[in-house]
Amino acid sequence: MTKTYARLTPLADSLPSTVPFVGPETQERARGRAFAARLGANENTFGPSPKVIAAMSEAAGGAWMYGDPENFDLRHALADHHGIAPETILVGEGIDGILGYLVRLIIGPGDKVVTSQGAYPTFNYHVAGFGGVLETVPYQDDHEDPEALIAKATEVGAKLVYIANPDNPMGTWHDAETIQRMIDAVPEGCLLVLDEAYIEFAPEGTAPTLNTDDPRVIRMRTFSKAYGMAGARVGYAIGQAELITAFNKIRNHFGMCRISQAGALAALKDQPYLAQVVANVADARARIDQIAQDNGLTTLPSATNFVAVDCGRDAEFAKAVLDQLIAQDMFVRMPFATPQNRCIRISAGQPEELDVFAAVLPKALAAARA
Amino acid sequence: MTKTYARLTPLADSLPSTVPFVGPETQERARGRAFAARLGANENTFGPSPKVIAAMSEAAGGAWMYGDPENFDLRHALADHHGIAPETILVGEGIDGILGYLVRLIIGPGDKVVTSQGAYPTFNYHVAGFGGVLETVPYQDDHEDPEALIAKATEVGAKLVYIANPDNPMGTWHDAETIQRMIDAVPEGCLLVLDEAYIEFAPEGTAPTLNTDDPRVIRMRTFSKAYGMAGARVGYAIGQAELITAFNKIRNHFGMCRISQAGALAALKDQPYLAQVVANVADARARIDQIAQDNGLTTLPSATNFVAVDCGRDAEFAKAVLDQLIAQDMFVRMPFATPQNRCIRISAGQPEELDVFAAVLPKALAAARA
Repeated sequence: MTKTYARLTPLADSLPSTVPFVGPETQERARGRAFAARLGANENTFGPSPKVIAAMSEAAGGAWMYGDPENFDLRHALADHHGIAPETILVGEGIDGILGYLVRLIIGPGDKVVTSQGAYPTFNYHVAGFGGVLETVPYQDDHEDPEALIAKATEVGAKLVYIANPDNPMGTWHDAETIQRMIDAVPEGCLLVLDEAYIEFAPEGTAPTLNTDDPRVIRMRTFSKAYGMAGARVGYAIGQAELITAFNKIRNHFGMCRISQAGALAALKDQPYLAQVVANVADARARIDQIAQDNGLTTLPSATNFVAVDCGRDAEFAKAVLDQLIAQDMFVRMPFATPQNRCIRISAGQPEELDVFAAVLPKALAAARA
Repeated sequence: MTKTYARLTPLADSLPSTVPFVGPETQERARGRAFAARLGANENTFGPSPKVIAAMSEAAGGAWMYGDPENFDLRHALADHHGIAPETILVGEGIDGILGYLVRLIIGPGDKVVTSQGAYPTFNYHVAGFGGVLETVPYQDDHEDPEALIAKATEVGAKLVYIANPDNPMGTWHDAETIQRMIDAVPEGCLLVLDEAYIEFAPEGTAPTLNTDDPRVIRMRTFSKAYGMAGARVGYAIGQAELITAFNKIRNHFGMCRISQAGALAALKDQPYLAQVVANVADARARIDQIAQDNGLTTLPSATNFVAVDCGRDAEFAKAVLDQLIAQDMFVRMPFATPQNRCIRISAGQPEELDVFAAVLPKALAAARA
């Protein structure tokens, strides 16, 4: 009685049992000790607003109730915030969850999807998980390449094309005009997935105007990054109402954590706190740049809450630096694709966490050079 | 520019934009006023343990961190609790979320799935969502019918057969020997989904011994019901390690709310509170039965936190009673299938909520009879 009776679908059977990212807790268990600085997952170490913490604590006692499956209050608050209709907003279990639903709606075996080589792995995980075929284009000067993405999507007849603006893992970005030109060039029958997870950190003029009449684009936003609520799992998508409604065909209607719903509502209301965090993160980016310079390294400009530090040699060297940082109790990650993997990626943490980075980087570089 | 550029898969395109259940908040918004008693979704109105509330409040400040994608601490605590290996436990976003993953792993277009007519609609929603074909057998004497389910699964070559023990929406149950006989009769190539969401409320001898070497069954458990954490979205599945590992192919690895993980861990540790809640729920069931008797009605025996009240006539009459109760500010639901829909389903709430039921039931019956 050892063989399972379960007969997996041919697609499921073909998939590896994998994980897009190894979590820091997994690494801590393997190392046998905790990290001193958790700067590898672009979590916002400044944390959620005190008002969010209070709202979630208050909501904890009501956890016996299912969350509202319509996410009515949060969708309406977001609609007011953005000046759009609530019917054009989908609230879901983080951008990861929403990307999974979106891919499920649109991609079947053999369908083509275009992204950049080295872009967000969890999106790729969902595409593979529904049998889609991923086509990639390289970064250009450490930026995603809107024209190449559109050209490839047109060439292969893609049903989805993905770009993150600002980009992860590089932190680079395009201005709103460039992204609007990309939207305007989306070929018919293709949908642009515009992942704006980091948009609150970006300069004015990075996000194109929201136009929910536009059938060519769906935009992804989140409370995980600037609002400091990664662990609460609240993301949202903005798109044409017809497309947003289609998620009701398949989404887990009662899937939202009720405590997280309350937290997101409070977060949205506390815009002064958001502004303070964005300022703190800007300071942290400048500090990371200074630390890099002090060690003879350069950084890439960033419109996110992380900075790509160019280690100045090849991927092998950057990996050696990364491993040394990890050995010195810093949780950090690095880009996957060449030549971006000459960099390591440091989240814009609190001053004391960057003190750790300042202290260990010289040692890590020395060890990597040795 | 009104038509969406998104090309849905033929399957997605064929699905209705639906919801398995309308939430009470939706009804409250439509009514323009709140319910006085929320007894329609088998939520546990006794709520989570004070220690759970404290743990979740404590965890709220750490919501900037993603939850551990391995659910390591919770899986290990569950393994200790049940005396099984952590590799045989999957933690997921409620049983609803896990059922979705399970159906995705196993069911493709045209694959057969067997359940009871009138059993859990969210399971059926997932089956339809992946193109599966549902075959049903009727209840027998208001119990799900294990022999008929197995016979149908064998007849149609089903890949999944579903039973809830105790059952929802009727509250009835089979003893462990009957369920073990069902497991032993599962045809090769079919997997039994044994939904034990309400098992903590059931008498000793209802759950067969956990045997994680058995490839024929996967068992679903939850923190939503007896632990009073429906809004936190934490369920788990127990099965053969090979099957449990397969969920890593497709699950949303970073999908768990970190606050909910902390809450579930605290809930599992507070078994005295669980025992108290189970006793309170038993008292509430007896009270519902008494209220029914006082109104000339009968109830079905229940091993859950709800009671099916037999309104003594047909579905139309039960629906009229239900509508009257709702008009009197009670959130309640009723079974879908004939002849079970002669009943209404009342969650085993707190004494003051049952006071509301006692007060409004006579009026509701009088109005329905008129």
